[in-house]
Amino acid sequence: MSIGPNRSRPNSLKVRRRAVTSSQETITLAHGAGGGAMHSLIDDLFLSAFGDAPLLQKEDQARLPLAEFLARGDRLALTTDSFVVSPLEFPGGDIGKLAVCGTLNDLAVGGAIPLYLSAAFIIEEGLPLALLGRLVGSMAEAARQAGVTIVTGDTKVVERGMADKLFINTTGVGVIPMGLNLAIGSARPGDKVLVNGHVGDHGAAVMLAREDLGLVGELASDCASLHSLIHPVLAQCTGVRCLRDATRGGLGGVLSEMAGASAVEIRLCESDLPIRPQTRALCELLGLEPLFLANEGLAAMVICPEQAEQALALWRGHPLGRDACIVGEVTGSSSPGRLSLLTPYGGERLLEVPHGLQLPRIC
Amino acid sequence: MSIGPNRSRPNSLKVRRRAVTSSQETITLAHGAGGGAMHSLIDDLFLSAFGDAPLLQKEDQARLPLAEFLARGDRLALTTDSFVVSPLEFPGGDIGKLAVCGTLNDLAVGGAIPLYLSAAFIIEEGLPLALLGRLVGSMAEAARQAGVTIVTGDTKVVERGMADKLFINTTGVGVIPMGLNLAIGSARPGDKVLVNGHVGDHGAAVMLAREDLGLVGELASDCASLHSLIHPVLAQCTGVRCLRDATRGGLGGVLSEMAGASAVEIRLCESDLPIRPQTRALCELLGLEPLFLANEGLAAMVICPEQAEQALALWRGHPLGRDACIVGEVTGSSSPGRLSLLTPYGGERLLEVPHGLQLPRIC
Repeated sequence: MSIGPNRSRPNSLKVRRRAVTSSQETITLAHGAGGGAMHSLIDDLFLSAFGDAPLLQKEDQARLPLAEFLARGDRLALTTDSFVVSPLEFPGGDIGKLAVCGTLNDLAVGGAIPLYLSAAFIIEEGLPLALLGRLVGSMAEAARQAGVTIVTGDTKVVERGMADKLFINTTGVGVIPMGLNLAIGSARPGDKVLVNGHVGDHGAAVMLAREDLGLVGELASDCASLHSLIHPVLAQCTGVRCLRDATRGGLGGVLSEMAGASAVEIRLCESDLPIRPQTRALCELLGLEPLFLANEGLAAMVICPEQAEQALALWRGHPLGRDACIVGEVTGSSSPGRLSLLTPYGGERLLEVPHGLQLPRIC
Repeated sequence: MSIGPNRSRPNSLKVRRRAVTSSQETITLAHGAGGGAMHSLIDDLFLSAFGDAPLLQKEDQARLPLAEFLARGDRLALTTDSFVVSPLEFPGGDIGKLAVCGTLNDLAVGGAIPLYLSAAFIIEEGLPLALLGRLVGSMAEAARQAGVTIVTGDTKVVERGMADKLFINTTGVGVIPMGLNLAIGSARPGDKVLVNGHVGDHGAAVMLAREDLGLVGELASDCASLHSLIHPVLAQCTGVRCLRDATRGGLGGVLSEMAGASAVEIRLCESDLPIRPQTRALCELLGLEPLFLANEGLAAMVICPEQAEQALALWRGHPLGRDACIVGEVTGSSSPGRLSLLTPYGGERLLEVPHGLQLPRIC
């Protein structure tokens, strides 16, 4: 079911939106019941933030001309992610911004040009409308900045205690330019490993934002939409082998997957890894490995050695890549899937992806 | 993030699936942590059920040839829905079947040919793996029957008490044949209103399945994928004006939206409405109006009078339309948005869509 399609009353959006955001109201079960209360919520809050044409056409599905896709590529890219991060707001972002950037990045790392998003909300009874309005506004702003349109959606409300405040699902649709075929199994011995910034910022910032940990610090999530960083490199460097955003499982998790899928060994150089002192300190305090902390604006790229410096320069010239570094290389294929860390003292430490939990509810 | 893409080990699916479904294990936070436990769960349970090619390609996004869309139409249809139904299993269906049929129906009522689905799971810690396996299997079966492929997905696990067992989001992608332009604002005076079966079965069945109500009865949800019922009518009857599946808000809610968007009055004839005696009895007991009960396999169609009988015959010849009826008509436009019921005694009762809650967690 679409939030826009069968519920929009565009002519009354502005007035009603003020009414909602200025009130002390909270979400009630009535807001999810399919009746007048739900229609008002959707008109007042969602459509006033996301009010793009397809949402206002009053249908159960967005209708998108295929010509627009064909003009840009030959394959449609589709990806989905549900966001359950706790707390809902943290330094550097919130669940709304995260729900847009996280899904757009899963399109971008496949070389896709992101075009459209769906947005589905599961709301716990009692969520303040003002908070919901703030998060939806943040979502709309992130979409605008990324140049994508939220074209369809859904709203459900569950009883108090049956969900934790708010969960958001976004599904992204993009188009992949002809001839572009990134694959996680393409890394080869001699390839270089690049990242566009500091490792572990998102995970560390969310940890600090959790009251139950009682920690304070100066860290912000790296939550960002990476398409504008990634696209120029893919357009100019034909030697890009593998590209991933290092979310759950962190940089270590992603590189370990690349090493496994490509049947190669990857070795990182510890002294080249950009990790903030605060992140290191926090990880030492909690006994965590920064390389397995979640990131939400960090891309890991494996590229042929000849083009590594060119790609590095391109990234460093972009606001989201100022701190980009070459952090390691594909060393061989005698131990397929092996990921290791070269210590400053010349030793080598094996990095094993944890079987279980490093941090819950991080994205 | 895609469940298949960066997590599949297809060679070991079969063996592992047996291991999972035969165990007494429950979901732990580790299953959502991005590490080995999550990868195993996805391989063992999700990929063994949904193991279609795009899921097994180990990328963060499904890649779908645009040629396949172009061969069938000129517009892409996109729709999303999150499912929070309680209980997870009920007579006639479960949350898995519902998550597939509900989203495919939102494509079908727009005239779209359903092609692909994404599937995202929010799982509460402690959910039995055997139950999850059953629900995922039901989802896979519903997709197979509807001829669509689940091509990408996501899994999150939240702590005990932070969600109610399982929520599923599905986003559907389809293609709309050239020249087909259904719109909810197209009803005209004189048009007939058709439904393909009994009203309120899903809502009534889910109510009966709720232990807290302590009711017993013989009702099953009408949960079904309607594309095969809808497509032939759209292909043969050019006079179809509006088409919707009558989910949350029920038949009354959908017809009221059509009447409003089309600025017409719709009058239903009570004696023509197919409502099961058990549904009527349950509604009387609980003080509910069957016309506002949710359905998950009921389509409401407004069609020009000349083609009403032809459409009715087409529906009655289909397994999902055996009990199809003409239940009312568009009577005029002097009271735009008015929905009323002609009683057996010749009186007329105004049907007002409830502002708030009739039933929570029905879909």
